[in-house]
Formats: sequence, C-alpha cells, structure tokens
Amino acid sequence: MQITVQREKLALAVSHVMKAVSGKTTMPILTGIKLKADQDGLTLTGSDSDISIEVNIPLEEADEWGVTVHQPGSVVLTARIFSEIVRKLPGNEIHMQVDERLATVIRSGQAEFTINGMNSEEFPQLLQIEDDKSFSVPSDLLKTMLRQTSFAVSTTEMRPILTGIMWSLEEGQLRFVSTDSHRLASRSANVECPAELRFHNIVVPGKSCNELVKILDDEQTLVDIVVGENQILVKANHILFFSRLLEGTYPDTSRIIPQTSKTEIVFQTKELLQAIERASLLSREGKTNVVRLATLPGGNIEISSNAPEIGKVTEVVAAKSLDGEELKISFNAKYMIEALRSIDSAEIKANFTGAASPFILRPTDHDWILHLILPVRTY
Amino acid sequence: MQITVQREKLALAVSHVMKAVSGKTTMPILTGIKLKADQDGLTLTGSDSDISIEVNIPLEEADEWGVTVHQPGSVVLTARIFSEIVRKLPGNEIHMQVDERLATVIRSGQAEFTINGMNSEEFPQLLQIEDDKSFSVPSDLLKTMLRQTSFAVSTTEMRPILTGIMWSLEEGQLRFVSTDSHRLASRSANVECPAELRFHNIVVPGKSCNELVKILDDEQTLVDIVVGENQILVKANHILFFSRLLEGTYPDTSRIIPQTSKTEIVFQTKELLQAIERASLLSREGKTNVVRLATLPGGNIEISSNAPEIGKVTEVVAAKSLDGEELKISFNAKYMIEALRSIDSAEIKANFTGAASPFILRPTDHDWILHLILPVRTY
Repeated sequence: MQITVQREKLALAVSHVMKAVSGKTTMPILTGIKLKADQDGLTLTGSDSDISIEVNIPLEEADEWGVTVHQPGSVVLTARIFSEIVRKLPGNEIHMQVDERLATVIRSGQAEFTINGMNSEEFPQLLQIEDDKSFSVPSDLLKTMLRQTSFAVSTTEMRPILTGIMWSLEEGQLRFVSTDSHRLASRSANVECPAELRFHNIVVPGKSCNELVKILDDEQTLVDIVVGENQILVKANHILFFSRLLEGTYPDTSRIIPQTSKTEIVFQTKELLQAIERASLLSREGKTNVVRLATLPGGNIEISSNAPEIGKVTEVVAAKSLDGEELKISFNAKYMIEALRSIDSAEIKANFTGAASPFILRPTDHDWILHLILPVRTY
Repeated sequence: MQITVQREKLALAVSHVMKAVSGKTTMPILTGIKLKADQDGLTLTGSDSDISIEVNIPLEEADEWGVTVHQPGSVVLTARIFSEIVRKLPGNEIHMQVDERLATVIRSGQAEFTINGMNSEEFPQLLQIEDDKSFSVPSDLLKTMLRQTSFAVSTTEMRPILTGIMWSLEEGQLRFVSTDSHRLASRSANVECPAELRFHNIVVPGKSCNELVKILDDEQTLVDIVVGENQILVKANHILFFSRLLEGTYPDTSRIIPQTSKTEIVFQTKELLQAIERASLLSREGKTNVVRLATLPGGNIEISSNAPEIGKVTEVVAAKSLDGEELKISFNAKYMIEALRSIDSAEIKANFTGAASPFILRPTDHDWILHLILPVRTY
C-alpha cells in the first residue's frame, strides 16, 4: 500500500473510527484501525465487535482532492498512536507506504514515522446486511430522538434487554422507547420509508446510541438506516456505523402507561426544572434523591426536600393551570431533571393518578414525546 | 447575622474562597466557608490550613451596591453545599439570616433554603503578618512568573523543600526558581519595592502557587505582596491570599548553571517544540520518555526517538544558527516540552557543554528566563 492523503480529511476520518475502538479488548487486532486503499479511495475501519465504524475518503469529492492511491493494499495500525501521529503531523499532505513486513512509513513535512503494522486479514470482516429493510431520517432528528431517550436506558445488567433503546416502525412512524423500570422515555417521529415497512423489538445498545449521537451532525441531511437480523447499519455521508442488536424480547411498555388522570398540572418547563435542580442540591445528599411536590390551596405548587444533617429547602412554583384532585407526591429528582432537560418545549403537562401511581410528562405543543416516572412512597 | 447581598458578587467571592477549601481535612470546620458581616461589608474565608483565602464584599463600591448588613454577625457554612446553592439561586438578591442556633435561612426569589451552620469561633484565626516587608508587582506579570516556573517544582516528597518555588528579592529584582533536581526553571523581573528591601529562601509551596495563579487576573493592576516569617500574603483587589512557607534551606542553584558552552544552537521555539512533541508520541511509550537531538553536517538538527515495540520517528529541524562542536544528546521530552511551552519568545538559544552535562535554554530577546535540563545518558 502506498498513498498520499489530505491530512485534515484523514484526521477527521480517524476521529470518527476511533469512537468504535475500545481500549479494553481481548483481541489485539481490535486496538488497531484498518486502512484499505483501492479504487474507491482510502477506507478506515474501527471496531470493538459491538460497534464498527467505517469511513471512506474518496479520491476526489466535489472537485476537492482527498487521496491518491499509488499502490492499493491494506494494513492495521495501532489506533491510539496512529491517531496522535495524524493529529500532530506538520504538513497538509501525508504520505504513507507499507512494506512487505508491514512496516509503515508515515511522512509529512520533515517528520518521518516508521510504525509496525498488523496484518489486515486478521481484522474481523464486517457482516453483510440486506438492504431491503431500509428507511431514511434527517440526521438532526435522529440525533434529537436518541438524545431524548438514551438517558433512560438501564445501566445495570439485571435485565440486559433494558440497556438498549427499543426501535419500532409502524405506518411510517419511527418510535424509540427506553426504560430502566423506574422511568420510561418515548419519542416518535414520521420518517420516509416504504409504506409496507414495519419492524418491532429492534433493541440498539445504549452505548451504541451514545456513540452514534457523536457521529451524526446537526444538519437535515438524510441518514439511511438498514435494519438487519442481528445488527443495524446507519449510513451518514461517508460514514457507515454498524451496531449489533440486543437479543431478547423487550417488555410491552404500552400497558404501564396510565390512561386516566386525577390531577393535571401545566408548568413552564424551565421554571419547574430549576426549582427541582435547587431542591436536589439537598436531596441528592441522601441515598434516594427524593424531592416532594405538593399542590397548594391557591393553585400553585410547592417543591421541597430535606437532608437531615444539612438542612431543607422549599420553593413555590407557579402552575400555568391546575385541575383535579389535590396531590402530594415524591419522586427521584434525577429522573425528573433528566426528563425535563430532554424536553425542548417551553411548557409541559403533568398527569397524576395519585401519590402511588406512575405519572406522565408531555410537552403541551406536540404528542411525539412521553415520559413516565414512578413515584417514591414517602407520604 | 442578617444580610442582603448581590448574588453575582457573592457567587464570585465564594468561587474564590472555595480554592482554599479542601475536600480532605481532619478539621470538620475547614469544610466550611466563614461568613462575617460587619461595618466593612461581608467577608468570606476559606482555608485548608496551608492556604487561606479571604474575600471582602464591600457595602458599596464605585457607586454599586454590594451588600446590606441588617445585623452584624458570623457563621460557617458547609462550602460545597453553600457554593452550589449560591450558584443556583434564582434572584439577583440573596437574603441570609442566622438564628441563635446557627440555622441559616437563605432566601432568593421563591426559593428558601434552611442550612445548619457551624460556630465561627471554631474557625482558625488567620495569622497576623507584618506589613514592613512588602512590595508590588503587576497581576499579569506575577501570573506569568508563576506559570513559567511552577511546572518544574518537585512532585515527590523526597526533598520537601523542592516542592515549592523559591522567591528571592535583591536590588529590586524578584526572582523565582524551581527545580526537581532533573531540571530547573528561573524567572526574574524588576518590581516596585523599597530600595533596601531584600529577602532570600522564601519557598512558597507549589500547590499554593497553582491556586494563586487561578485568582490573579490578567490585568496590569498592582498586587501587593507581604513576606512574613512563616507565611506570605498576596493582596489582589478585595482578595487576601495567605500561604504558609516551606521550612528548610533551598539549595544554592547558582553553582550548577554552567558558565561555558561548547555548542550553541538558535531555534524557532515553536518548530523545535512541535518536533519534540511528535518524537515524544513514541518516546513516552517507554519509561524514560527519551528523545535524541543530533547536529547534522549541513548545520541542521535531527530530532529522533524510538519505541521498540511500536516504531521510530526522525525529523530534521532547521537551526537559525549553529556554532561550536558537533553534538549528540538525549533528554526527557517532558522536561523539554514544558520548558519550551513556558517560554513566550519566538526564538530560543540552547547552550550545550557535551552529552553528559546539563544544558541551558534562554529566549534570544531577553535575559529574564533560564531553563536548565539534565541530559539522559544513552550515547
């Protein structure tokens, strides 16, 4: 292999594939980045066997030079060292040459590195994925949907299936659901897809979702998603993002969402969020991080909390509207804060059915988001 | 104690005194910030017994309201909680009231915290310091001098005296010296002081210097420094910064600075720095982080390094001038990088007296800075 590549393009590609490279791996080859040069340009691959990321630098793109392939070939280079070398090289062009013993000379400006390469044939092949189950979604929307659900995935391995986001598609509506069994986040959106396309129980690991968020840009450019048997592929620009899926059956969460409401309160999202953040300064000193919410006779709300050794806090929050029964309820402040931070709407509606039942948060301006939180029994 | 205080001023004062509060302390009272309200306004104090920081919020300053003291008094509040409360309070004004059992009500907007206070009489008194040994230095210059020497203090307790920066003053010239016995950094400057004022062997702990840097602003406003028997006081604006001094005798470093030179090379600082940073990508994989420098026949320099398992790197760096004997020398890349990063001049002059002797780096445009580095014997 012998190539000349534009430094910034290589640096960007390396930073993308690095997201799939894990420091901890039992397969030494996976500490490396695979480089492959052929008639399609230079293709880089990183993998931790759960996530694989492939980035292509084309020979030329929009009249801009990317890479020149003097001699096709491939090599695997230690990711950590190679990424730092690329970042620190002085010139705009990088020349790379691999000899038959895989010694790789990297030259730029007056600097010349010689790095021991690994055999690219030892690098695991990416699985083929059938293109028939595919749909498209704007990059920024996908990013928002992931951000609005990923925080609620379970972080314990008690029920491994809950460590992922469950993706489903029906009648052109894509839906993400996550739950750690104490709270649930749900986000839906209409997407471009064949009318007959539908799937359910596609559970993408939370870690994959977090890495995917970092790769997606905030543009409205369409991202293609291919859903396979055991894996999912997201195609964004010159990046291919593969993730394995979690095995198992995701619980039917539709049954736990209450259909009735005894108390309905509308809040300014930011005002409620900040009051709970303040109350949580004390509650998080305790083990359970419990904050209390109580309706007041005048139609307002009191948020309060205490930490026995330290002190207490109370704050009156104005409700935009308050209908139904009076209420005293306690909840984990963390769940409430994360839900409120993820809702981008100025107003939210909260529906309660008593102090012992799960309650629901929804934006007032659309129905695409639903959060459910289980209360803590203290009253 | 009962006061109303401007939130931003309180938040800034708290963030300053927090720098002296340590999470780890055997004296519970030192986990707190002392607040004292009297005719001078509100004074906050934090201390970890090595460093103490005192900040005053005056009643009024430049026609701007700071604090109103309704009733003088004092209290100590847990620093971590209090600082977070102040940061998160909703209003521009904060009202505080301490009752006879030290329960402290903090009110702002609709939020009301009640925090358990501690008795301010348990808080250690700051030592008095005589004002006769005092001088002035611009804030930004002091900050630069600390930054240009603090990185070279020893981080091991083998010779405790070396964990500080040695300050001396003679004939109006303030000098900071630091060394960890592998390298030495020295920075001097003329300061405003009484003609007869002189001191030597004032060793300020490295940790204190690092905290002091964070408090100093980048303005040319004069900072007053008072040197006491066992401590030093830096007065900047409304901030008093106290640090204890290290006990013991700082070694006489003037003797180890070579007075002769066999090879003199002038470099572009940035060019040499970047070449060594690149070489260090490989050398730091080894234990000693050794980079080699060798003169080339044409009058240029080669920087090189290798890591047996990974590879090697060489780079030719242009010398602005090269006089004297040819040279091959090895050194710890970290020492060289830190010295070169701290020199703000575009060009540096390096003087060598052979591969086994310490060498010197100086900017070419002034004599206020000197770095000395011991080589590593490999050739």
